[in-house]
Amino acid sequence: MEEEVATAIGTPNIALVKYWGRRDSALNLPTNSSISMTMDETLCTKTSVAFSKNLPEDIFYLNGEIQDFRHGTEKTMKVKRALDEMRKFAGIRAKAMIVSKNFFPTGGGIASSASGGATLTFALSKALGLNLKAKELSIVARQVSGSASRSVLGGIVKWNRGKKRDGSDSYAEQVFDKSYWPDLIDIVCMISGEKKKVSSSEGHDLAPTSILYKARIPYAEKAVERAITAIRQRDLNALAEIVMRDSNNMHATMLDSWPPIIYMTDLGKEIMAKIHELNAAEGEMVAGYTHDAGPNTQIITIKSNRNKVMSALKEVKGIKDIITVNQGDGPRLLSARDSLITPDLVPKG
Amino acid sequence: MEEEVATAIGTPNIALVKYWGRRDSALNLPTNSSISMTMDETLCTKTSVAFSKNLPEDIFYLNGEIQDFRHGTEKTMKVKRALDEMRKFAGIRAKAMIVSKNFFPTGGGIASSASGGATLTFALSKALGLNLKAKELSIVARQVSGSASRSVLGGIVKWNRGKKRDGSDSYAEQVFDKSYWPDLIDIVCMISGEKKKVSSSEGHDLAPTSILYKARIPYAEKAVERAITAIRQRDLNALAEIVMRDSNNMHATMLDSWPPIIYMTDLGKEIMAKIHELNAAEGEMVAGYTHDAGPNTQIITIKSNRNKVMSALKEVKGIKDIITVNQGDGPRLLSARDSLITPDLVPKG
Repeated sequence: MEEEVATAIGTPNIALVKYWGRRDSALNLPTNSSISMTMDETLCTKTSVAFSKNLPEDIFYLNGEIQDFRHGTEKTMKVKRALDEMRKFAGIRAKAMIVSKNFFPTGGGIASSASGGATLTFALSKALGLNLKAKELSIVARQVSGSASRSVLGGIVKWNRGKKRDGSDSYAEQVFDKSYWPDLIDIVCMISGEKKKVSSSEGHDLAPTSILYKARIPYAEKAVERAITAIRQRDLNALAEIVMRDSNNMHATMLDSWPPIIYMTDLGKEIMAKIHELNAAEGEMVAGYTHDAGPNTQIITIKSNRNKVMSALKEVKGIKDIITVNQGDGPRLLSARDSLITPDLVPKG
Repeated sequence: MEEEVATAIGTPNIALVKYWGRRDSALNLPTNSSISMTMDETLCTKTSVAFSKNLPEDIFYLNGEIQDFRHGTEKTMKVKRALDEMRKFAGIRAKAMIVSKNFFPTGGGIASSASGGATLTFALSKALGLNLKAKELSIVARQVSGSASRSVLGGIVKWNRGKKRDGSDSYAEQVFDKSYWPDLIDIVCMISGEKKKVSSSEGHDLAPTSILYKARIPYAEKAVERAITAIRQRDLNALAEIVMRDSNNMHATMLDSWPPIIYMTDLGKEIMAKIHELNAAEGEMVAGYTHDAGPNTQIITIKSNRNKVMSALKEVKGIKDIITVNQGDGPRLLSARDSLITPDLVPKG
């Protein structure tokens, strides 16, 4: 195979103010802006890409399973779209082999699609020798998965909703480098690794059925700005409340959708209660919980509060795993020896 | 004891469109109108009242435990208020002994305070030989517990929110007698009989902290009218959806309150999913779930669908008890031999 190849590693992000609901489902254009912290490589996706004239068609392996581009799901169609966008940038027609693997449970409320979409986009651009700006990467990643638009950058990242119909102003920008507030961490509580019943994409499409949803939109937009101020001031007391309230607010609109969507479980609610207890005992917000579109709880805090949080979590029975994550830098290239493309995956021809 | 006595029986109601949030906490004036079905005597409260000049002070036994009027909770203060209102109506000063007993778990999300408040008010009026109109009874009962305003009447009852500051236009009216749609029933799924952590009263006071709550108010007001239309047309398909959506909508604003209030459990959500499955399989809404401010799930349906609902519920493990309830007539007098006032409760003197 005469190839243009790259292998990259990228990571999820945890939204501090969430993306929920879209003004355009095909382009993943959100109803409101959002802000997140990109994770370090404790949880990650690795993706290898090879463009080759010898390939008769595009091939995509995700977590060891081949994905069907011709009769694909919405998600595989969005991967295809990113691939086509990148070919357009490079002015080539060669087919690609993509092999991607998530090093954490897929579809369990940890943003595997954010990690996957950003890493794929980055790997594609590098394989094709494109020197794209973060803005361009973010726009392509956004089309794979909305929250992937944020994972192309490190530290604290804001995804501007944008207003244009073509999405050209809907992309992420770094607000703070990870060195601005390096103490800020995320404690991931794995409650369930099961694939969720209602995908995020289906959920986004149901958002407008909620009567309460219209009241969320201006609130979330303001919450993003308030989160930026809190982070600028390294004010955990303010940030933790913003994070918890936004998470509850989003899940409230989910419950109010028709049919209702419920991602949180009794165990998640027990963790919430523990964090409220801890904050009450400390007399200020020393940690804030947040739930993405899934059952797992994540806790935003600072390094010096980690032990207090871990003690509180010890009283909750049933958490499968607790993983502490720092801020990360976004996707980067790996060496050729890290390639996930093994000879057995390459079609004979 | 020279006495004015009465013993009455009264029942809870299940709100089809809920009361959540108050414009006046002392008078229990609601932010929105609500509508409910008064239950038959399967679940009930019995209350005996005796006014006597020989009593040195008011005495109140609830479920066998004496309540402290002098250092009372908000709830006992509201019982005291009803007592004072009734004395004013009768123009007397005699103290009263009240003995009340709920024949279902208290404080577990079945409207024990509605049943209790309505039965007390009715018993007081009868003991004093007052011939009060339903409107007057409703206004007094409302001051004990908001939803009690609806339990003074039978069948389908609307509580008009009213606009006046003194609450004189905030009372319940019967919309349909129980004979209008006698097939309409309520299947009560007891999930937990535990006393809830956040009382309804505390919850009402937190309602305005929800960002989404302001969007609920006009919705609930319209939902009451839509429920009346659905019942007038005996249209279960329409009614079930109104009931489910309103319940979810209320619990969404609870989750969005600060601090958040969560009454529903995983078991309740499992029942919800089963009802959605059943309705999908039937191609129309044959039942609708609803959650009051507590963990228990109630299912509104018609008699001919009862077996289908029971089959669906059989697949859910962990429900403690299932009780089918018809529409009831509201409070009525019992005979003297049903009195709960036993000689040992009467103070010597």
